[in-house]
Amino acid sequence: MRLRNKPWAVKLVNDHPESVLQNPDPEKKIDWAARFGNDHPIEIEVGSGKGHFITTLAEMHPEKNFVALELQTTAAGIILRTKLEKGLDNLQILRGDAADIDCFFDENTTDVIYLNFSDPWPKTRHEKRRLTYKSFLSKYKQVLKADGHIEFKTDNSGLFAYSVQSMNNYGMHFDFVSVDLHHEKPEIVEKNIETEYEHKFAAKGNPIYALHADFN
Amino acid sequence: MRLRNKPWAVKLVNDHPESVLQNPDPEKKIDWAARFGNDHPIEIEVGSGKGHFITTLAEMHPEKNFVALELQTTAAGIILRTKLEKGLDNLQILRGDAADIDCFFDENTTDVIYLNFSDPWPKTRHEKRRLTYKSFLSKYKQVLKADGHIEFKTDNSGLFAYSVQSMNNYGMHFDFVSVDLHHEKPEIVEKNIETEYEHKFAAKGNPIYALHADFN
Repeated sequence: MRLRNKPWAVKLVNDHPESVLQNPDPEKKIDWAARFGNDHPIEIEVGSGKGHFITTLAEMHPEKNFVALELQTTAAGIILRTKLEKGLDNLQILRGDAADIDCFFDENTTDVIYLNFSDPWPKTRHEKRRLTYKSFLSKYKQVLKADGHIEFKTDNSGLFAYSVQSMNNYGMHFDFVSVDLHHEKPEIVEKNIETEYEHKFAAKGNPIYALHADFN
Repeated sequence: MRLRNKPWAVKLVNDHPESVLQNPDPEKKIDWAARFGNDHPIEIEVGSGKGHFITTLAEMHPEKNFVALELQTTAAGIILRTKLEKGLDNLQILRGDAADIDCFFDENTTDVIYLNFSDPWPKTRHEKRRLTYKSFLSKYKQVLKADGHIEFKTDNSGLFAYSVQSMNNYGMHFDFVSVDLHHEKPEIVEKNIETEYEHKFAAKGNPIYALHADFN
Protein backbone atom coordinates (compact mmCIF):
# COMPACT_ATOMS: atom_id res chain seq x y z
CA MET A 1 0.00 0.00 0.00
CA ARG A 2 1.42 3.36 -1.00
CA LEU A 3 1.74 5.86 1.87
CA ARG A 4 1.72 9.64 1.52
CA ASN A 5 5.24 11.07 1.77
CA LYS A 6 6.06 12.43 5.21
CA PRO A 7 9.05 14.82 5.40
CA TRP A 8 9.77 13.85 9.04
CA ALA A 9 10.13 10.24 7.93
CA VAL A 10 12.73 11.08 5.29
CA LYS A 11 14.73 13.04 7.85
CA LEU A 12 14.44 10.35 10.54
CA VAL A 13 15.55 7.62 8.13
CA ASN A 14 18.51 9.70 6.92
CA ASP A 15 19.53 10.46 10.52
CA HIS A 16 19.74 6.74 11.45
CA PRO A 17 22.07 4.87 9.09
CA GLU A 18 22.86 2.46 11.96
CA SER A 19 19.23 1.26 11.85
CA VAL A 20 18.23 1.77 8.23
CA LEU A 21 20.26 0.55 5.31
CA GLN A 22 19.12 2.47 2.21
CA ASN A 23 19.36 0.99 -1.28
CA PRO A 24 22.58 -0.89 -0.60
CA ASP A 25 24.73 -1.91 -3.56
CA PRO A 26 23.48 -5.42 -4.47
CA GLU A 27 27.05 -6.27 -5.48
CA LYS A 28 28.38 -5.80 -1.95
CA LYS A 29 27.82 -8.19 0.96
CA ILE A 30 25.97 -6.81 3.97
CA ASP A 31 27.57 -7.76 7.27
CA TRP A 32 24.42 -8.45 9.28
CA ALA A 33 26.29 -9.79 12.31
CA ALA A 34 28.14 -6.46 12.50
CA ARG A 35 24.92 -4.44 12.14
CA PHE A 36 23.13 -6.45 14.84
CA GLY A 37 26.21 -6.84 17.02
CA ASN A 38 25.58 -10.60 17.26
CA ASP A 39 24.93 -13.62 15.06
CA HIS A 40 21.46 -14.56 16.27
CA PRO A 41 19.19 -16.22 13.71
CA ILE A 42 17.56 -13.89 11.18
CA GLU A 43 13.93 -13.58 10.12
CA ILE A 44 12.88 -11.28 7.26
CA GLU A 45 9.57 -9.63 6.47
CA VAL A 46 9.29 -8.71 2.81
CA GLY A 47 7.20 -5.54 2.54
CA SER A 48 6.71 -4.44 6.13
CA GLY A 49 4.45 -1.43 5.54
CA LYS A 50 4.00 0.45 8.82
CA GLY A 51 5.69 -2.41 10.65
CA HIS A 52 3.22 -3.50 13.32
CA PHE A 53 3.89 -7.16 12.55
CA ILE A 54 7.67 -7.09 12.56
CA THR A 55 8.05 -4.72 15.51
CA THR A 56 5.68 -6.85 17.60
CA LEU A 57 7.63 -9.97 16.67
CA ALA A 58 10.96 -8.28 17.44
CA GLU A 59 9.65 -7.21 20.83
CA MET A 60 8.48 -10.74 21.64
CA HIS A 61 11.73 -12.39 20.54
CA PRO A 62 14.83 -10.51 21.74
CA GLU A 63 16.80 -13.73 21.12
CA LYS A 64 16.30 -13.41 17.35
CA ASN A 65 17.17 -10.77 14.74
CA PHE A 66 14.61 -9.29 12.38
CA VAL A 67 14.92 -7.41 9.10
CA ALA A 68 12.10 -5.29 7.73
CA LEU A 69 12.56 -5.14 3.97
CA GLU A 70 10.56 -2.17 2.74
CA LEU A 71 11.00 0.07 -0.29
CA GLN A 72 9.05 3.16 0.80
CA THR A 73 10.86 5.81 2.84
CA THR A 74 7.76 6.91 4.73
CA ALA A 75 7.01 3.32 5.77
CA ALA A 76 10.66 2.84 6.76
CA GLY A 77 10.39 6.01 8.86
CA ILE A 78 7.28 4.78 10.66
CA ILE A 79 8.93 1.42 11.42
CA LEU A 80 12.08 3.22 12.60
CA ARG A 81 10.07 5.47 14.93
CA THR A 82 8.57 2.37 16.59
CA LYS A 83 11.96 0.69 16.76
CA LEU A 84 13.45 3.72 18.54
CA GLU A 85 10.49 4.12 20.90
CA LYS A 86 10.60 0.45 21.90
CA GLY A 87 14.40 0.16 21.84
CA LEU A 88 14.38 -2.79 19.49
CA ASP A 89 18.08 -3.47 18.96
CA ASN A 90 17.22 -6.72 17.20
CA LEU A 91 15.41 -4.98 14.33
CA GLN A 92 17.08 -3.57 11.22
CA ILE A 93 15.30 -1.81 8.39
CA LEU A 94 16.41 -2.44 4.82
CA ARG A 95 15.18 -0.02 2.17
CA GLY A 96 15.53 -2.12 -0.93
CA ASP A 97 13.80 -4.18 -3.58
CA ALA A 98 12.53 -7.69 -2.73
CA ALA A 99 13.92 -8.86 -6.07
CA ASP A 100 17.42 -8.31 -4.64
CA ILE A 101 16.82 -10.39 -1.50
CA ASP A 102 19.39 -12.95 -2.65
CA CYS A 103 21.99 -10.16 -2.84
CA PHE A 104 21.14 -8.71 0.57
CA PHE A 105 21.45 -12.03 2.44
CA ASP A 106 23.94 -14.86 2.22
CA GLU A 107 22.87 -18.37 1.31
CA ASN A 108 21.47 -20.56 4.11
CA THR A 109 21.30 -17.73 6.62
CA THR A 110 17.62 -17.09 7.23
CA ASP A 111 15.15 -18.97 9.40
CA VAL A 112 11.85 -17.46 8.26
CA ILE A 113 10.67 -15.20 5.44
CA TYR A 114 7.33 -13.51 6.05
CA LEU A 115 5.21 -12.38 3.10
CA ASN A 116 2.32 -10.38 4.50
CA PHE A 117 -0.43 -8.89 2.35
CA SER A 118 1.81 -8.23 -0.59
CA ASP A 119 0.58 -6.58 -3.77
CA PRO A 120 -1.65 -9.10 -5.62
CA TRP A 121 -0.71 -7.80 -9.11
CA PRO A 122 -3.96 -9.29 -10.45
CA LYS A 123 -3.23 -8.82 -14.16
CA THR A 124 -1.73 -11.88 -15.84
CA ARG A 125 0.94 -9.75 -17.52
CA HIS A 126 2.17 -8.72 -14.05
CA GLU A 127 2.51 -12.31 -12.77
CA LYS A 128 6.30 -11.97 -12.53
CA ARG A 129 5.93 -9.18 -9.98
CA ARG A 130 3.98 -11.30 -7.50
CA LEU A 131 6.17 -12.15 -4.53
CA THR A 132 5.29 -15.85 -4.90
CA TYR A 133 6.28 -16.07 -8.57
CA LYS A 134 8.85 -18.82 -9.14
CA SER A 135 11.78 -16.44 -9.60
CA PHE A 136 11.14 -15.05 -6.09
CA LEU A 137 10.72 -18.56 -4.66
CA SER A 138 14.09 -19.48 -6.08
CA LYS A 139 15.69 -16.52 -4.27
CA TYR A 140 13.94 -17.34 -0.99
CA LYS A 141 15.22 -20.90 -1.31
CA GLN A 142 18.80 -19.64 -1.60
CA VAL A 143 18.52 -17.33 1.39
CA LEU A 144 16.68 -19.74 3.70
CA LYS A 145 18.43 -22.35 5.80
CA ALA A 146 17.65 -25.99 4.98
CA ASP A 147 15.12 -26.06 7.84
CA GLY A 148 13.84 -22.55 7.13
CA HIS A 149 10.37 -21.75 5.86
CA ILE A 150 8.05 -19.13 4.38
CA GLU A 151 4.97 -17.76 6.15
CA PHE A 152 2.55 -16.16 3.73
CA LYS A 153 -0.69 -14.27 4.55
CA THR A 154 -3.10 -12.42 2.30
CA ASP A 155 -6.70 -11.26 2.08
CA ASN A 156 -6.63 -11.56 -1.70
CA SER A 157 -8.30 -14.75 -2.95
CA GLY A 158 -6.60 -14.56 -6.35
CA LEU A 159 -3.13 -14.10 -4.91
CA PHE A 160 -3.71 -16.91 -2.41
CA ALA A 161 -4.88 -19.41 -5.03
CA TYR A 162 -2.00 -18.37 -7.29
CA SER A 163 0.53 -18.77 -4.50
CA VAL A 164 -0.75 -22.20 -3.44
CA GLN A 165 -0.35 -23.39 -7.01
CA SER A 166 2.98 -21.63 -7.58
CA MET A 167 4.57 -22.98 -4.39
CA ASN A 168 3.17 -26.46 -5.02
CA ASN A 169 4.39 -26.48 -8.62
CA TYR A 170 7.82 -25.34 -7.38
CA GLY A 171 7.93 -28.50 -5.26
CA MET A 172 7.46 -26.79 -1.90
CA HIS A 173 6.08 -28.70 1.07
CA PHE A 174 3.10 -27.21 2.91
CA ASP A 175 3.25 -27.13 6.71
CA PHE A 176 0.09 -25.14 7.37
CA VAL A 177 -2.86 -24.01 5.25
CA SER A 178 -5.84 -21.89 6.25
CA VAL A 179 -8.54 -20.16 4.24
CA ASP A 180 -9.98 -18.52 7.35
CA LEU A 181 -7.08 -17.80 9.67
CA HIS A 182 -9.05 -15.64 12.10
CA HIS A 183 -11.52 -18.47 12.77
CA GLU A 184 -9.06 -21.29 13.31
CA LYS A 185 -8.63 -23.01 16.69
CA PRO A 186 -7.88 -20.59 19.57
CA GLU A 187 -4.21 -21.67 19.83
CA ILE A 188 -3.66 -20.66 16.19
CA VAL A 189 -5.64 -17.41 16.37
CA GLU A 190 -3.86 -16.33 19.56
CA LYS A 191 -0.44 -16.81 17.99
CA ASN A 192 -1.30 -14.74 14.92
CA ILE A 193 0.24 -11.26 14.84
CA GLU A 194 -1.92 -8.97 12.74
CA THR A 195 -0.55 -6.39 10.34
CA GLU A 196 -2.25 -2.97 10.26
CA TYR A 197 -3.88 -3.85 6.96
CA GLU A 198 -5.03 -7.28 8.22
CA HIS A 199 -6.66 -5.75 11.28
CA LYS A 200 -8.67 -3.30 9.19
CA PHE A 201 -9.62 -5.86 6.58
CA ALA A 202 -10.59 -8.68 8.94
CA ALA A 203 -12.79 -6.30 10.94
CA LYS A 204 -15.08 -6.21 7.88
CA GLY A 205 -15.56 -9.97 8.22
CA ASN A 206 -13.49 -10.93 5.19
CA PRO A 207 -11.37 -14.08 5.39
CA ILE A 208 -7.60 -14.09 5.81
CA TYR A 209 -5.70 -16.82 3.96
CA ALA A 210 -2.43 -18.28 5.22
CA LEU A 211 0.17 -20.73 3.98
CA HIS A 212 3.40 -21.93 5.61
CA ALA A 213 5.75 -23.84 3.35
CA ASP A 214 9.33 -25.08 3.15
CA PHE A 215 11.62 -26.37 0.43
CA ASN A 216 12.03 -29.90 1.82
CA MET B 1 -25.74 -35.62 3.23
CA ARG B 2 -28.10 -38.28 4.52
CA LEU B 3 -31.41 -38.57 2.63
CA ARG B 4 -34.67 -39.90 4.04
CA ASN B 5 -35.33 -43.48 2.88
CA LYS B 6 -37.76 -43.66 -0.03
CA PRO B 7 -39.38 -47.07 -0.65
CA TRP B 8 -39.80 -46.34 -4.39
CA ALA B 9 -36.04 -45.81 -4.64
CA VAL B 10 -35.25 -49.19 -3.11
CA LYS B 11 -37.63 -50.90 -5.53
CA LEU B 12 -36.30 -48.99 -8.56
CA VAL B 13 -32.70 -49.79 -7.68
CA ASN B 14 -33.51 -53.47 -7.18
CA ASP B 15 -35.39 -53.58 -10.48
CA HIS B 16 -32.38 -52.30 -12.46
CA PRO B 17 -29.33 -54.48 -11.87
CA GLU B 18 -28.11 -53.56 -15.38
CA SER B 19 -27.71 -49.92 -14.22
CA VAL B 20 -26.94 -50.25 -10.53
CA LEU B 21 -24.29 -52.52 -9.14
CA GLN B 22 -25.04 -53.03 -5.43
CA ASN B 23 -22.30 -53.79 -2.90
CA PRO B 24 -20.24 -55.87 -5.29
CA ASP B 25 -17.73 -58.32 -3.86
CA PRO B 26 -14.47 -56.33 -3.60
CA GLU B 27 -12.62 -59.56 -4.36
CA LYS B 28 -14.16 -59.88 -7.81
CA LYS B 29 -13.26 -57.76 -10.84
CA ILE B 30 -16.04 -55.66 -12.36
CA ASP B 31 -16.15 -55.84 -16.14
CA TRP B 32 -16.96 -52.20 -16.88
CA ALA B 33 -16.57 -52.56 -20.65
CA ALA B 34 -19.26 -55.25 -20.54
CA ARG B 35 -21.58 -53.13 -18.37
CA PHE B 36 -21.19 -50.07 -20.62
CA GLY B 37 -21.09 -52.08 -23.85
CA ASN B 38 -17.94 -50.22 -24.91
CA ASP B 39 -14.48 -49.30 -23.63
CA HIS B 40 -14.79 -45.52 -23.63
CA PRO B 41 -12.74 -43.67 -20.98
CA ILE B 42 -14.16 -43.70 -17.46
CA GLU B 43 -14.73 -40.84 -15.03
CA ILE B 44 -15.89 -41.47 -11.45
CA GLU B 45 -17.73 -39.26 -9.00
CA VAL B 46 -17.17 -40.36 -5.42
CA GLY B 47 -20.32 -39.59 -3.42
CA SER B 48 -22.82 -38.46 -6.05
CA GLY B 49 -25.74 -37.57 -3.79
CA LYS B 50 -28.80 -36.84 -5.92
CA GLY B 51 -26.61 -36.90 -9.00
CA HIS B 52 -27.17 -33.55 -10.70
CA PHE B 53 -23.44 -33.18 -11.36
CA ILE B 54 -22.76 -36.62 -12.82
CA THR B 55 -25.98 -36.87 -14.84
CA THR B 56 -25.34 -33.42 -16.37
CA LEU B 57 -21.79 -34.43 -17.25
CA ALA B 58 -22.95 -37.76 -18.72
CA GLU B 59 -25.52 -35.96 -20.85
CA MET B 60 -22.87 -33.51 -22.13
CA HIS B 61 -20.33 -36.24 -22.93
CA PRO B 62 -21.88 -39.28 -24.62
CA GLU B 63 -18.35 -40.19 -25.79
CA LYS B 64 -17.27 -40.92 -22.20
CA ASN B 65 -18.44 -43.31 -19.49
CA PHE B 66 -19.34 -42.19 -16.00
CA VAL B 67 -19.68 -44.03 -12.72
CA ALA B 68 -21.61 -42.55 -9.78
CA LEU B 69 -20.18 -44.12 -6.65
CA GLU B 70 -22.78 -43.67 -3.92
CA LEU B 71 -23.52 -45.67 -0.79
CA GLN B 72 -27.11 -44.59 -0.07
CA THR B 73 -29.92 -46.49 -1.77
CA THR B 74 -32.26 -43.51 -1.90
CA ALA B 75 -29.60 -41.37 -3.57
CA ALA B 76 -28.82 -44.21 -6.00
CA GLY B 77 -32.55 -44.41 -6.80
CA ILE B 78 -32.76 -40.68 -7.51
CA ILE B 79 -29.72 -40.86 -9.82
CA LEU B 80 -31.17 -43.92 -11.53
CA ARG B 81 -34.50 -42.18 -12.13
CA THR B 82 -32.66 -39.33 -13.90
CA LYS B 83 -30.56 -41.79 -15.88
CA LEU B 84 -33.67 -43.59 -17.11
CA GLU B 85 -35.55 -40.37 -17.91
CA LYS B 86 -32.62 -38.99 -19.90
CA GLY B 87 -31.58 -42.32 -21.41
CA LEU B 88 -28.00 -42.03 -20.20
CA ASP B 89 -26.46 -45.30 -21.38
CA ASN B 90 -23.03 -43.96 -20.47
CA LEU B 91 -23.82 -43.74 -16.74
CA GLN B 92 -23.53 -46.59 -14.27
CA ILE B 93 -24.36 -46.39 -10.58
CA LEU B 94 -22.19 -48.22 -8.10
CA ARG B 95 -23.56 -48.70 -4.57
CA GLY B 96 -20.38 -49.23 -2.64
CA ASP B 97 -17.84 -47.78 -0.25
CA ALA B 98 -15.27 -45.25 -1.54
CA ALA B 99 -12.63 -47.08 0.49
CA ASP B 100 -12.99 -50.00 -1.95
CA ILE B 101 -12.48 -47.86 -5.08
CA ASP B 102 -9.22 -49.69 -5.83
CA CYS B 103 -11.14 -52.98 -5.86
CA PHE B 104 -13.95 -51.71 -8.07
CA PHE B 105 -11.66 -50.35 -10.81
CA ASP B 106 -8.53 -51.75 -12.41
CA GLU B 107 -5.22 -49.90 -12.24
CA ASN B 108 -4.63 -47.12 -14.79
CA THR B 109 -8.18 -47.14 -16.07
CA THR B 110 -9.73 -43.85 -14.99
CA ASP B 111 -9.37 -40.37 -16.48
CA VAL B 112 -10.92 -38.24 -13.75
CA ILE B 113 -12.09 -38.73 -10.17
CA TYR B 114 -14.51 -36.09 -8.90
CA LEU B 115 -14.78 -35.42 -5.18
CA ASN B 116 -17.70 -33.06 -4.68
CA PHE B 117 -18.74 -31.70 -1.29
CA SER B 118 -17.74 -34.79 0.59
CA ASP B 119 -18.22 -35.17 4.33
CA PRO B 120 -15.68 -32.88 6.07
CA TRP B 121 -15.30 -35.14 9.12
CA PRO B 122 -14.06 -32.15 11.12
CA LYS B 123 -12.91 -34.03 14.23
CA THR B 124 -9.20 -34.88 14.21
CA ARG B 125 -9.92 -38.46 15.28
CA HIS B 126 -11.96 -38.89 12.06
CA GLU B 127 -9.17 -37.64 9.77
CA LYS B 128 -8.81 -41.09 8.15
CA ARG B 129 -12.38 -40.93 6.91
CA ARG B 130 -11.84 -37.77 4.87
CA LEU B 131 -11.80 -38.60 1.18
CA THR B 132 -8.52 -36.70 0.76
CA TYR B 133 -6.67 -38.60 3.51
CA LYS B 134 -3.49 -40.18 2.18
CA SER B 135 -4.86 -43.74 2.15
CA PHE B 136 -7.61 -42.59 -0.24
CA LEU B 137 -5.11 -40.64 -2.37
CA SER B 138 -3.04 -43.80 -2.71
CA LYS B 139 -6.10 -45.66 -4.03
CA TYR B 140 -7.00 -42.86 -6.46
CA LYS B 141 -3.43 -42.96 -7.74
CA GLN B 142 -3.74 -46.67 -8.50
CA VAL B 143 -7.03 -46.30 -10.32
CA LEU B 144 -6.16 -43.18 -12.33
CA LYS B 145 -4.29 -43.30 -15.61
CA ALA B 146 -0.84 -41.65 -15.66
CA ASP B 147 -2.40 -38.52 -17.19
CA GLY B 148 -5.54 -38.70 -15.04
CA HIS B 149 -6.43 -36.21 -12.34
CA ILE B 150 -8.66 -35.40 -9.38
CA GLU B 151 -11.19 -32.56 -9.32
CA PHE B 152 -12.16 -31.61 -5.80
CA LYS B 153 -14.82 -29.08 -4.69
CA THR B 154 -16.07 -28.16 -1.25
CA ASP B 155 -17.74 -25.37 0.68
CA ASN B 156 -15.99 -26.45 3.86
CA SER B 157 -12.97 -24.27 4.68
CA GLY B 158 -11.47 -26.84 7.03
CA LEU B 159 -11.75 -29.71 4.55
CA PHE B 160 -10.33 -27.54 1.79
CA ALA B 161 -7.29 -26.44 3.79
CA TYR B 162 -6.77 -30.03 4.94
CA SER B 163 -7.00 -31.37 1.40
CA VAL B 164 -4.58 -28.78 -0.03
CA GLN B 165 -2.03 -29.81 2.58
CA SER B 166 -2.73 -33.54 2.30
CA MET B 167 -2.46 -33.59 -1.51
CA ASN B 168 0.65 -31.38 -1.43
CA ASN B 169 2.30 -33.54 1.22
CA TYR B 170 1.48 -36.62 -0.85
CA GLY B 171 3.52 -35.07 -3.68
CA MET B 172 0.57 -34.23 -5.93
CA HIS B 173 0.86 -31.49 -8.54
CA PHE B 174 -1.79 -28.76 -8.55
CA ASP B 175 -3.33 -27.80 -11.90
CA PHE B 176 -6.00 -25.41 -10.65
CA VAL B 177 -6.77 -23.76 -7.32
CA SER B 178 -9.65 -21.47 -6.42
CA VAL B 179 -10.96 -20.19 -3.11
CA ASP B 180 -13.94 -18.52 -4.77
CA LEU B 181 -14.91 -20.69 -7.72
CA HIS B 182 -18.18 -18.91 -8.45
CA HIS B 183 -16.41 -15.57 -8.90
CA GLU B 184 -13.58 -16.71 -11.16
CA LYS B 185 -13.27 -15.55 -14.78
CA PRO B 186 -16.43 -16.18 -16.87
CA GLU B 187 -14.84 -19.04 -18.85
CA ILE B 188 -14.22 -20.93 -15.59
CA VAL B 189 -17.61 -20.15 -14.01
CA GLU B 190 -19.48 -21.18 -17.17
CA LYS B 191 -17.75 -24.56 -17.27
CA ASN B 192 -18.59 -25.35 -13.66
CA ILE B 193 -21.37 -27.90 -13.15
CA GLU B 194 -23.03 -27.32 -9.81
CA THR B 195 -24.13 -30.08 -7.48
CA GLU B 196 -27.52 -29.68 -5.76
CA TYR B 197 -25.77 -28.89 -2.50
CA GLU B 198 -23.39 -26.39 -4.15
CA HIS B 199 -26.30 -24.52 -5.74
CA LYS B 200 -28.08 -24.10 -2.43
CA PHE B 201 -24.96 -23.20 -0.53
CA ALA B 202 -23.52 -20.71 -3.02
CA ALA B 203 -26.88 -18.92 -3.23
CA LYS B 204 -26.23 -17.79 0.35
CA GLY B 205 -23.06 -16.03 -0.86
CA ASN B 206 -20.60 -18.47 0.70
CA PRO B 207 -17.43 -19.30 -1.22
CA ILE B 208 -16.84 -22.57 -3.06
CA TYR B 209 -13.28 -23.91 -2.97
CA ALA B 210 -11.81 -26.01 -5.78
CA LEU B 211 -8.60 -27.91 -6.43
CA HIS B 212 -7.54 -29.96 -9.47
CA ALA B 213 -4.47 -32.10 -8.97
CA ASP B 214 -2.58 -34.98 -10.56
CA PHE B 215 0.10 -37.44 -9.46
CA ASN B 216 2.81 -36.24 -11.86
